[in-house]
Amino acid sequence: MGSRRTDMTSFIYEQLAQRFSEQIHTGLWRPQQRLPSIRQLSEEFGVAKITVQHALHKLEASGLVEARPRSGYFVCQRSVPAVPSSKRLLNTQPSLVNMPLIFQDIMARSAAFDLCPGAPVNEPASHLLQLNRHIGRAMRQQLHHKALYYTGPQGNPALREQIALLYQGRNCPLDAEALCITAGCQNSLFLALMSCCEPGDTVAVESPAFYGVLQLLQQLRLKVVEIPVSPTLGLKAADLEAVVRKWPVKACVITASFATPTGASIPGEEKRQLVALAEQYGLTLIEDDIYGDLGFHFRPEPLKAFDKNGNVILCSSISKSLSRDLRLGWIAGGRHHDKIVHLKLINQLASGQAMQEGLASFMAEGHYKRHLLQYRQQLKRQRDDLLKALNALWQFPFRYTVPEGGIALWLELQKQQDTARYYQPLLMENIVITPGALFSTQGHFNNYLRLSFAHPATGPRRQALARLAGVFAGRG
Amino acid sequence: MGSRRTDMTSFIYEQLAQRFSEQIHTGLWRPQQRLPSIRQLSEEFGVAKITVQHALHKLEASGLVEARPRSGYFVCQRSVPAVPSSKRLLNTQPSLVNMPLIFQDIMARSAAFDLCPGAPVNEPASHLLQLNRHIGRAMRQQLHHKALYYTGPQGNPALREQIALLYQGRNCPLDAEALCITAGCQNSLFLALMSCCEPGDTVAVESPAFYGVLQLLQQLRLKVVEIPVSPTLGLKAADLEAVVRKWPVKACVITASFATPTGASIPGEEKRQLVALAEQYGLTLIEDDIYGDLGFHFRPEPLKAFDKNGNVILCSSISKSLSRDLRLGWIAGGRHHDKIVHLKLINQLASGQAMQEGLASFMAEGHYKRHLLQYRQQLKRQRDDLLKALNALWQFPFRYTVPEGGIALWLELQKQQDTARYYQPLLMENIVITPGALFSTQGHFNNYLRLSFAHPATGPRRQALARLAGVFAGRG
Repeated sequence: MGSRRTDMTSFIYEQLAQRFSEQIHTGLWRPQQRLPSIRQLSEEFGVAKITVQHALHKLEASGLVEARPRSGYFVCQRSVPAVPSSKRLLNTQPSLVNMPLIFQDIMARSAAFDLCPGAPVNEPASHLLQLNRHIGRAMRQQLHHKALYYTGPQGNPALREQIALLYQGRNCPLDAEALCITAGCQNSLFLALMSCCEPGDTVAVESPAFYGVLQLLQQLRLKVVEIPVSPTLGLKAADLEAVVRKWPVKACVITASFATPTGASIPGEEKRQLVALAEQYGLTLIEDDIYGDLGFHFRPEPLKAFDKNGNVILCSSISKSLSRDLRLGWIAGGRHHDKIVHLKLINQLASGQAMQEGLASFMAEGHYKRHLLQYRQQLKRQRDDLLKALNALWQFPFRYTVPEGGIALWLELQKQQDTARYYQPLLMENIVITPGALFSTQGHFNNYLRLSFAHPATGPRRQALARLAGVFAGRG
Repeated sequence: MGSRRTDMTSFIYEQLAQRFSEQIHTGLWRPQQRLPSIRQLSEEFGVAKITVQHALHKLEASGLVEARPRSGYFVCQRSVPAVPSSKRLLNTQPSLVNMPLIFQDIMARSAAFDLCPGAPVNEPASHLLQLNRHIGRAMRQQLHHKALYYTGPQGNPALREQIALLYQGRNCPLDAEALCITAGCQNSLFLALMSCCEPGDTVAVESPAFYGVLQLLQQLRLKVVEIPVSPTLGLKAADLEAVVRKWPVKACVITASFATPTGASIPGEEKRQLVALAEQYGLTLIEDDIYGDLGFHFRPEPLKAFDKNGNVILCSSISKSLSRDLRLGWIAGGRHHDKIVHLKLINQLASGQAMQEGLASFMAEGHYKRHLLQYRQQLKRQRDDLLKALNALWQFPFRYTVPEGGIALWLELQKQQDTARYYQPLLMENIVITPGALFSTQGHFNNYLRLSFAHPATGPRRQALARLAGVFAGRG
């Protein structure tokens, strides 16, 4: 039914759920607190009672609130990992990145987001069959044209048009001409950083940060400054401003929606302030939006939606939401667009035509949106199952985030647990973990772990979780 | 028949043809000179008379020698473009590259190697149908595995194995483990330069050089020094040595076989000396081998074949020989291999699995080799037809190379003809030319032009050649 609601209604109800969620995450509504009644909320927010009810159902489904018989809704007790000290990090001088070699090895292996990469995967594949059909059709058309000519570096116009439509549905008016097709989101991030930074420049990142970005900074010889973020609400504009006033920051990499590893999403008003800061300080925001389409309850606006002057470079792909095999992503470069298109050209000349055309017609026929509706529900179920399994199997103290989208959550173990230490021994048992140390250049998060719910926590994957319980309880 | 000859015999006979060709190109055998008799050649080179005859037939087919009735073989009169003065260039200080914006635009358009990109292409497509079938089969297999996992950054082992076999057939013992799959040859060159140079370093290139490399140097902020090369025999080791002794050169980009734009190939002994120089001066040679499989009469050894200590980075792809649409290339990084694999990872994570598997099985079943046998003959016919058309249509002085492989030749017009000046006006008539100025950072080759024979010089393409005749004769 949710899919048939008009965009406008769905927008109000999603906005409301997001507002409620922000009240909880910011502490305005505290754990165990009773919420105002539906009538009161309806009056306070100026919406119909049915809309409030819908929003509360969504929050309940995501474990943020619980309904108690005859007593109304209460904020759930949540258990959230700690944040590194802002003060300490903000005073650390920007420095070149030097990740240990083992982390390069881990990145090459663990990008699969699967504890047991060898274990079977049994999920509906109709969307993949459909996608193959579209690519196959595109491959059969104009054989010579595809074999003998490159497309322009900006990529297939029909595909850019479909991607622009996606963003318009997220309240972000993007034009097809503003987009450039890339070889995936990591390739987009690479082009983004190359377009606005020179070796030796300083780049701010969220802490914890996506390891792919940290290793990019190292290879491009950029200096990093890490800004501690909330594991639920992400980067705060005030913290970015403090850093920008202190250090000559050229760009800041931000994942505003369902960031890896925490799953945090930045509230709307904070996003507006971040973009205003970019304008004020002549800063480029590089937005990693790869999880933006994987919100369980709503599709948050990207930072780019607030960008009037081209200071935000939006990077994304379909690798996490549809298929990692197409090697297609995109970038909306704002004022860096022309430079990015040229960098794309000299980096790889062009993207494959058949893949682009196939994806464009797949999207144009609505298959991508239909797949997302199903996939978001599947991911949400898998998140819940993972949390159930963890709470059942792990008999020692740990804290975790409960992301409302994306494919992974963030776990904090006890101080003495250095998760990276277990990486190699577990690899010998065909268990691949993603240790917290990967997500910082400063040795924070050594006792953290990212766990993905891209696969159901059953069978061999549940056994792997049980094995981890043994390891982390010191019986490994 | 040629294809059924054993590798050993074919090797001797090709080697012999190459030796003869070198005698001519180096001037040991001069134009109009009568060659020694078949018996004399057979004794001098210690091979059977039939082998000498085969070699001479090949040289005759490529227009290097001609048989005169009852008189034997004679070296043909050839007309070759001029070489820029070595002295002047070798004294030019290395400097950062700054190509005019229009050249970025030209590069984005002209990479198609077609005067009339809109005109129809009617050529056999059975190899493309076959390739599609292999990719289609790979796409249908392990749907989930492909959609949910990346392969390692080094790429599909079966494909690397097939590529290694290709090189073994060219007398270059490469191991699958020494290779990394990339997004095409331009992507390989990008990774190669990033792996062995830092901004500000000096890179030597051939002059004329491939414009894709010049623009790479610009984006990576590398300094360039251009070394004049022979339009038939390419780069001389003595010239490279003179440059290396004078400037702190970190790497040298060399196309040893059928270089664009000239079509020149470096003789075997000269290749050995170039690799020895790299060893002596701690230099990295970046070899662009994209045309290596497109030799009409023999498949020359790459520089890499002479590399014992990992100083040569070999870059190539199937874009020119099979299909530009797969976006697959490779790189054999020598001592830079590990760094290159990591750069590939942070640049694009991985390559598409279905494309790699499809190409691997296509090659394993021998389709690539069969296609090459046919395609080389087709290209040779098209080269001859282009030269015939030029000689028939252009009634003014011009000089040109007659490449023995590849897909393009190099034309020198009269001094006053600045070919770049005609680029925009001709574009309005849907004719895309590749002006000589693209191939140098120093304003050499303004009166030169690269013409491709990737398409038959008939129909609209012949009309375009006639139009160029009008333009260059000053009646444009």
